[in-house]
Amino acid sequence: MTPKALLFDVFGTVVDWRSGITRDLAIHFQTHPSNTDPESVADAWRAEYQPSMEPVRSGRRGYVDLDTLHAENLVKLSKEYEFDLGDENKTVWLTKAWHRLPCWPDSVAGIERLKRQFICASQSNGHIALAVNLAKYNNYSWDVILGAEVVRTYKPDPDAYKRAAACLGLEPSSCMMVAAHNYDLKAAQDVGFKTAFVRRPSEHGPNQAIDLEATGDWDVCVESLTDLATKLSCR
Amino acid sequence: MTPKALLFDVFGTVVDWRSGITRDLAIHFQTHPSNTDPESVADAWRAEYQPSMEPVRSGRRGYVDLDTLHAENLVKLSKEYEFDLGDENKTVWLTKAWHRLPCWPDSVAGIERLKRQFICASQSNGHIALAVNLAKYNNYSWDVILGAEVVRTYKPDPDAYKRAAACLGLEPSSCMMVAAHNYDLKAAQDVGFKTAFVRRPSEHGPNQAIDLEATGDWDVCVESLTDLATKLSCR
Repeated sequence: MTPKALLFDVFGTVVDWRSGITRDLAIHFQTHPSNTDPESVADAWRAEYQPSMEPVRSGRRGYVDLDTLHAENLVKLSKEYEFDLGDENKTVWLTKAWHRLPCWPDSVAGIERLKRQFICASQSNGHIALAVNLAKYNNYSWDVILGAEVVRTYKPDPDAYKRAAACLGLEPSSCMMVAAHNYDLKAAQDVGFKTAFVRRPSEHGPNQAIDLEATGDWDVCVESLTDLATKLSCR
Repeated sequence: MTPKALLFDVFGTVVDWRSGITRDLAIHFQTHPSNTDPESVADAWRAEYQPSMEPVRSGRRGYVDLDTLHAENLVKLSKEYEFDLGDENKTVWLTKAWHRLPCWPDSVAGIERLKRQFICASQSNGHIALAVNLAKYNNYSWDVILGAEVVRTYKPDPDAYKRAAACLGLEPSSCMMVAAHNYDLKAAQDVGFKTAFVRRPSEHGPNQAIDLEATGDWDVCVESLTDLATKLSCR
């Protein structure tokens, strides 16, 4: 059975966070130098992402949005990599680098084609404003943004997927998770979603060690979102 | 100052609920006759809309979605206008008429042009699934759907507008409410939104008595969404 809705992971799947973060860190380091290169700080910033959501997923901490987590993690990194954050404007600008991430070259065309046939939803751990700003920055638009505020938890908590399907008035089996990350697809499959793995072998840069290949029994495996549109028979 | 986001009322402003509901009631009455015409039942169904949300707005009743309210109100109407609802499938189909409303002729082109320059959000009292289905049915898409689940109350509760702006990470003064209803614009203006009145003189049919003209000091008054795009200098 074909799904009715495709739910997309965003960071890494639709947008290339590493290039975007590296670019804006490099700009910041021009005036506030660090003891290392922007790529390493970008990787370290992303590496803080999962651990910082864990207290929210486990319920030890109330819901806070990704801007808050990214800002807290940035303060930590500024100490570790010995760079000055500058005044409040500079810090906010740098934290908002996560709202200015370029998409992969196939994302705009892929989403446009897939929207002709399916409900295409953003299902990122980002909050609504972040998902909207990323879309406007890159000039694509979702049919619906199921931000973290909507599902009130973070993936891969099973409730994140179940509540997303419920919001669309659909059974999990009518939903397909589209992601470049095997752990995300596994969690979605466990609640009954269909799954599409998008290979993004340079998400983590030249030395990427994870998610180079599908590690689960996913319904579709593709090299890009335009490839997904073709595999799902979209014009 | 130009707004950053336009928040659209949907029923009456973007879609022509009366034609859509009349059409589907007429289909239902072919097999389950009523003692009156479909237009009258459509008007009566819509008239139940505001009163049925009131217990939710006032907090006497927990949040329920519009499908639930529309279904309850339909049962009431079936008694008043003496028509049989048919089996469960028929009843669900008829309730879902609210997901199949045709848009006004200018809506698709207007939203498309306005999206080039602004964040265009659906801010209806409808739930997310309803707003998505209406958009897919008519082949337009929002940048973001701020459904009733997101703001957790119904307009014109001031919190509905305040929470919508907060979800976008914007001040109310950066948001413009777009609606065919003066009461909606008044409530939005009271929390600091800019306002655009779209005249829809046939929303309630040939004998429409309200919202024929702007009754407040709105920032923009237009005859259609394409007219709004032109007034706001969108290509």
